Amino acid sequence: MIRISLDAMGGDFGPEVSLEGASRALTRQPDIQFILYGQEAECRPILNKYPKLRDKSVFHHCEVAIRMDEKPSQALRRGRYSSSMWKAIEAVKLGEADVAVSAGNTGALMAMSKFCLRTMSNVERPAIAGIWPTLRGESIVLDVGATIGADSQQLLDFALMGGAMARALFEIRRPTVGLLNVGVEEIKGQEEVKEAGRLLREANLDTINYHGFVEGDDIGKGTVDVVVTEGFTGNIALKAAEGTARQISEFLRASIKRTWIAQLGYLLAKSAFDRVREKMDPRKVNGGVFLGLNGIVIKSHGGTDGEGYAAAIKVGYDMVRNGLFEKIEADLKKYHALRVPPSDAQEETAGTL
Amino acid sequence: MIRISLDAMGGDFGPEVSLEGASRALTRQPDIQFILYGQEAECRPILNKYPKLRDKSVFHHCEVAIRMDEKPSQALRRGRYSSSMWKAIEAVKLGEADVAVSAGNTGALMAMSKFCLRTMSNVERPAIAGIWPTLRGESIVLDVGATIGADSQQLLDFALMGGAMARALFEIRRPTVGLLNVGVEEIKGQEEVKEAGRLLREANLDTINYHGFVEGDDIGKGTVDVVVTEGFTGNIALKAAEGTARQISEFLRASIKRTWIAQLGYLLAKSAFDRVREKMDPRKVNGGVFLGLNGIVIKSHGGTDGEGYAAAIKVGYDMVRNGLFEKIEADLKKYHALRVPPSDAQEETAGTL
Repeated sequence: MIRISLDAMGGDFGPEVSLEGASRALTRQPDIQFILYGQEAECRPILNKYPKLRDKSVFHHCEVAIRMDEKPSQALRRGRYSSSMWKAIEAVKLGEADVAVSAGNTGALMAMSKFCLRTMSNVERPAIAGIWPTLRGESIVLDVGATIGADSQQLLDFALMGGAMARALFEIRRPTVGLLNVGVEEIKGQEEVKEAGRLLREANLDTINYHGFVEGDDIGKGTVDVVVTEGFTGNIALKAAEGTARQISEFLRASIKRTWIAQLGYLLAKSAFDRVREKMDPRKVNGGVFLGLNGIVIKSHGGTDGEGYAAAIKVGYDMVRNGLFEKIEADLKKYHALRVPPSDAQEETAGTL
Repeated sequence: MIRISLDAMGGDFGPEVSLEGASRALTRQPDIQFILYGQEAECRPILNKYPKLRDKSVFHHCEVAIRMDEKPSQALRRGRYSSSMWKAIEAVKLGEADVAVSAGNTGALMAMSKFCLRTMSNVERPAIAGIWPTLRGESIVLDVGATIGADSQQLLDFALMGGAMARALFEIRRPTVGLLNVGVEEIKGQEEVKEAGRLLREANLDTINYHGFVEGDDIGKGTVDVVVTEGFTGNIALKAAEGTARQISEFLRASIKRTWIAQLGYLLAKSAFDRVREKMDPRKVNGGVFLGLNGIVIKSHGGTDGEGYAAAIKVGYDMVRNGLFEKIEADLKKYHALRVPPSDAQEETAGTL
């Protein structure tokens, strides 16, 4: 049994989509036990449309629903302890749920998750890991927007956590990890990335296989299983790629409409198009995973539909089943046990002076 | 007459491609006067294949050719004063050429350009501007890799220079300019971007129309004419987008091959595909423009073909014809005249203490 707490109010379409998604997920993963949080008046009629979900899950009424445009600080002030978003996260903290899922706004969800679950020991900052379709299958990219900027130690934490997630999600023994960088050598700045590379090479970990630097186009190629970068660049790379996919699809649509021959051709080749669309479908890879907190939280795209929401739930389900949290904890402990903690080292030096 | 100096040896295929590109360009823009720099033994036989180009251009033999994998410092040591790359840039400095074009390696080309031409007064750092196909036509994105990191003043310089380039290239009176950022508000870091936004808003320039922040997917949408970011993020966004386009095209190719019906459909819809391919064709938008130096240098993709190289030459040609350099100079002067230079301001304060 996998217990999933759900912020039913999150997302552009609220319970309309989240409950449909939960219902779809339940059909596919019947061993899920949902704990649903939302405003009863809005959720109840929708829940009644999905009797199986209704009967197999627990519903908790929450007064407050966090809005999609609410600033993190405002959401915290207004929704802490009482909103459906908070309650879903808190269920993980209290050990009532194994993972929380929300399509609510990212900033608020991260702020509440940090406040409620706290950062894992040995981790300085949490990250959001995204799943990216590639020519070789799928890769994990992190951070795609939890924080801006990262020092070498934080990048190393991301590499460890991303590696653990790859092992949990793809069932690879020793995933390859690359640091996102620009091709130009001997250039100033981004010393953090170079330093993180040195640290990773020296650590020579048995949980991840450090590949070296990768460039922007290596992500789609699937050169490595895990691409590590700080959140500003990661977020912009992700959105630039999504934008390009949408752009090509719009160009193609407009172009095909121009002649009836092209339209006929499109109909004949439709199965091929559908395959590509499915491969690049953002709904299929929906589900940003918050890593580095004392519990797993999954962020679904705010604008997704029931199918996309079900995919986000599936990501959470897989994470729990494959012991993501335990893997991260073990990997971090292993790595940090090898290092002399900086504070101890300092004390030692002070003692001998 | 537009005088273009060419590093014939640059690029993965050297004079084979650069001279073919020059020949194509000459057919389309007959008022170009080429000054060619390269190793005679290699260039002469190829040049003889293009008699019109040969007869209408000047060829200078250069001993040294910069390799594609040469580090900038190494290239400078080995090729300064003597390589075809250096000579092509120097021709601009000496006023013999209006613009230089090279498909040589970016790091070396930028290092030599900076060393030879020097940075414009009022500009702290040069930038590489790329032309990006969008749903609305084309946009300019800078910096795509000249430098890593940028403070608010440098971002503002990029905005001014990108604006001047948009006016030169697209013939828009007051182009819209956006600062690339992540959507999440109230997040730490990237203070430079927020500060640049404040500066741009306050400056309220008549040469550019400051739009505000844009996100990664706004680039492909064509939300603004000019997207401003520092070189690390810009380079990764550009390559992530290129990677995605290649990925979709490979998915489609593989998918169409699977059934003969799909292949037939593809043949019928081929004109539509070709239109999209043309729109997204990296050759068509080939030509990174080095901005902020005392002269214009165009970087062609190293792996491009003759058609792509001709497109890079065309970019240089348009830049000269439309007075890009003079526009940048005038815009920067105008902006900086409005500000009290920081050093003067300091002196004043010191004087009154």
